[in-house]
Amino acid sequence: GLVCQSNLSPENRKLEECREHIRAQLDAVVEFWLKYSHDTVHGGFFTCIGRDGNVYDELKYVWLQGRQVWMYCRLYRSVDRFRRPDILEAAKAGGEFLRKFARVSTNGNQWKCAFCLTRDGKAVKVQRTIFSECFYIMAMDELSRVTGDKEMQLEAEQMMEQLIYWVREDASGLGRPQLPGDVPTNSMAVPMMLLCLVQQLSEGRPEAGKKYAELGSWCVTEIQQHIQRDGTAILENVSATGAELPGCLGRLQNPDSGHALEAGWFLLRYAADNNNKELQRTAIEKFVELPFESGWDKAHGGLFYFLDVDGHCPTQQLEWSMKLWWPHSEALVAFLMAYSQTRSRELLENFFRVYEYTFSHFPDSKSGEWFGYLTQEGKVALDFKGGPFKGFFHVPRCLYMCESLLDDLLGKHG
Amino acid sequence: GLVCQSNLSPENRKLEECREHIRAQLDAVVEFWLKYSHDTVHGGFFTCIGRDGNVYDELKYVWLQGRQVWMYCRLYRSVDRFRRPDILEAAKAGGEFLRKFARVSTNGNQWKCAFCLTRDGKAVKVQRTIFSECFYIMAMDELSRVTGDKEMQLEAEQMMEQLIYWVREDASGLGRPQLPGDVPTNSMAVPMMLLCLVQQLSEGRPEAGKKYAELGSWCVTEIQQHIQRDGTAILENVSATGAELPGCLGRLQNPDSGHALEAGWFLLRYAADNNNKELQRTAIEKFVELPFESGWDKAHGGLFYFLDVDGHCPTQQLEWSMKLWWPHSEALVAFLMAYSQTRSRELLENFFRVYEYTFSHFPDSKSGEWFGYLTQEGKVALDFKGGPFKGFFHVPRCLYMCESLLDDLLGKHG
Repeated sequence: GLVCQSNLSPENRKLEECREHIRAQLDAVVEFWLKYSHDTVHGGFFTCIGRDGNVYDELKYVWLQGRQVWMYCRLYRSVDRFRRPDILEAAKAGGEFLRKFARVSTNGNQWKCAFCLTRDGKAVKVQRTIFSECFYIMAMDELSRVTGDKEMQLEAEQMMEQLIYWVREDASGLGRPQLPGDVPTNSMAVPMMLLCLVQQLSEGRPEAGKKYAELGSWCVTEIQQHIQRDGTAILENVSATGAELPGCLGRLQNPDSGHALEAGWFLLRYAADNNNKELQRTAIEKFVELPFESGWDKAHGGLFYFLDVDGHCPTQQLEWSMKLWWPHSEALVAFLMAYSQTRSRELLENFFRVYEYTFSHFPDSKSGEWFGYLTQEGKVALDFKGGPFKGFFHVPRCLYMCESLLDDLLGKHG
Repeated sequence: GLVCQSNLSPENRKLEECREHIRAQLDAVVEFWLKYSHDTVHGGFFTCIGRDGNVYDELKYVWLQGRQVWMYCRLYRSVDRFRRPDILEAAKAGGEFLRKFARVSTNGNQWKCAFCLTRDGKAVKVQRTIFSECFYIMAMDELSRVTGDKEMQLEAEQMMEQLIYWVREDASGLGRPQLPGDVPTNSMAVPMMLLCLVQQLSEGRPEAGKKYAELGSWCVTEIQQHIQRDGTAILENVSATGAELPGCLGRLQNPDSGHALEAGWFLLRYAADNNNKELQRTAIEKFVELPFESGWDKAHGGLFYFLDVDGHCPTQQLEWSMKLWWPHSEALVAFLMAYSQTRSRELLENFFRVYEYTFSHFPDSKSGEWFGYLTQEGKVALDFKGGPFKGFFHVPRCLYMCESLLDDLLGKHG
């Protein structure tokens, strides 16, 4: 039911202001990508977009193609004001481009996707990881929900089977050579992404829910293996048996708070779906509060990108001290979801803390959208709006989820 | 002959001060690595050395193993005060470690080297490029000159044959899959490294000089293909026929001044050896002065790491605006060599300009050696002394070459 504005507590009045601001930001961000990123000649989306919307490179990154399809469909499907034909058409065109060009057949493997394509869809680069495929699946599943295309849904599930096989049975199909010094590593990104896919594929489908239940539970266990050092740190890479690895690889908190916080809200969502209070507590204490504590820059504000748990200087990550858009996006979602599940004051205060930093630093008041990369001091370091890893995804997903969480908190739905 | 100090011109007095300072720096840097980097248990060198000399990771990077062997041997062979048994023993131990462990036999290819090894020599990672092999060859050739080991020299030349085949005939042995959108690219690093190897293998050996003469000349031609845009820019990547490539890849000045300046002094050395005045002029104008003009940060001093020739923001290189030790090392050598060949005042002034910045920013007065990574403003961003790409190489090579050039300029030799 609707709540009358004048009856709001000071807290809720502040949340209402956030909601209005986030809603306006989401509208603007969607318009930015609708305006500048569509390739009406070859299909799909330009992903390298400069500060003012100019395409500075025609390469098409597959992660970002898949993410943009997913995001358009999700907005179309779940936010009334985005149920627009132009958004649907753009999503379909992106999906078509992906289906036509993303899959490459190196190694005679029918499901491997490229990482990067030319404007007209020729493979430029293939990664020996599972992430292009993950975003392909997200795109196909969400698009099939909007269009009702059963074949597409089937394709998503078939590729999912391949992914599960690579992760749990045999990774050799990914093309990485076995080397004697390359010890099997459990990277948190993998079970996180799989959990995200389980949630995607299962939503509103009890059959699929049953099919992927065991996998979901496996992912949750795997993610929790990254709680290390007697519960005082989340480490990105652990051994296959969940032990700490030696050296920089083992000590990496990657991206210190971003991944951990993202895993945090994946786990919170899972805990809520499964009514698991213990997991909810673990998610909040270990994946939200703990990484925020260690990752927040006390001197300049904002979240560090990478840290070494022993305080060494990260060496592979020259950008460790930079402030990136996406850990901040994930932090907003994580704190707001944690607050909405618990109504803890402290979580709300941290949400506001991240909110202040984020909205005073990342949005570009001149040309719209957000900057992605700031120096430690908060100055814009790279001014593009889209690049190999920044597309129509973290920003709109954060805004969409925060708006939706705030709608619920403030009783704005229906 | 010796020059009496009091008779020096003001210019030469300044150069004499530089020489003294550089000499002392070189001594200190050599002592740092002798003290902290030797692995007396498994052989070879630790390459991940923290600010105070602590080993923060036991991984051994092959580029750096090869470079350290080369550098020790070069110092031993050509600088009287470094003709010390401990330096020779360290070089031999490093060479032994490399011969025992660096070569991996993925793809059934007997010459492919790993990029990174565990402390006890197990391969962790293999790059699908030629650079580990390049530094292996440099190490073996230089070590064989010190020890007189003919078999080792032969091994270096055999591996060189393989390299040439990969570069000029067929790269498929490197393991990179052929992708339809991945157009053949001429990266400046490749002919640069080959030219460096030609100079290494040919030094003082007329037979080898003859054998590699055609290759040297090919490298020089290939390097000059990177002079683009009517001679106004050096671009790191061009097409196989020497045309500009589209997008970020084509516009990259990588590392803006570092590679270009390093290529500059490789070409200057080649021009001197071949008495080629035209090449000397090209090297100075296009590979030394031009990149210095575009790469020098007018606001904060120092050389940018990467730039986009059209002024876009580099996207793959988050560290584009950072100031790194090695482009500054290369700039010192390039300007001093160019000055010593031409006696141009302007080149000397630029040498002093780089000198001031370098020595006031990079050396660590507390723990010795140099920092490698500064922010755009010149603050230390990462404080380790050795990492995956920083080892006992650019700093001591620069100091050794500058000392030697200054000895010549000031008439200090013999």
